[in-house]
Amino acid sequence: MNAAAVAGGQVGPSLDLVFQALADPSRRAIVERLARGPASVSELAQPLEMALPSVLQHLQLLEASGLVRSAKTGRVRTCRINSTALDQAERWISRRRSAMERAFDRLGDFLKE
Amino acid sequence: MNAAAVAGGQVGPSLDLVFQALADPSRRAIVERLARGPASVSELAQPLEMALPSVLQHLQLLEASGLVRSAKTGRVRTCRINSTALDQAERWISRRRSAMERAFDRLGDFLKE
Repeated sequence: MNAAAVAGGQVGPSLDLVFQALADPSRRAIVERLARGPASVSELAQPLEMALPSVLQHLQLLEASGLVRSAKTGRVRTCRINSTALDQAERWISRRRSAMERAFDRLGDFLKE
Repeated sequence: MNAAAVAGGQVGPSLDLVFQALADPSRRAIVERLARGPASVSELAQPLEMALPSVLQHLQLLEASGLVRSAKTGRVRTCRINSTALDQAERWISRRRSAMERAFDRLGDFLKE
């Protein structure tokens, strides 16, 4: 956790866990679905064509990463996306892009001189 | 690979491998360094305080993901960042953000009515 916080230069949920969570197509499909609005666990399970325990395991990892939050009302657990973790991953990537653009500009300046 | 291509709605190197590669602080440190310009393997290894075989293993995964490319000239292997794979990860995240914003707008419209 600390290593990730240092490497990413930020606090909050570990970037390791966020990227790890996004490294699986079923988990990305869950995030894609939740980006369009909250859903129950069974609604999430339906298009995945996988047994409920597997879905719950993916959800557990998504919750640990901070990408998803869930709350139980009666017998229904409703899942929602948490944009903070997604923001964090997006910021990390966009900072790399800025660094690449600056390096490219420096190269351009060097070649002009 | 196919599952990832379907879930991400795109071709090219697998998003699974790209996110997997980014899920480790040492590999992110390598990507951070290479975003500032090309570097030799030994230049990459120095700040990581890890044995060369471990660095090479991380580089192998980064190359498999498409995030990094390398070429050997004489005895020196030079590594460079490949923006395509980073673009792909960035696009996936930004599409989720757009979906979230649209869902939020729809909720706003609904509450206004």
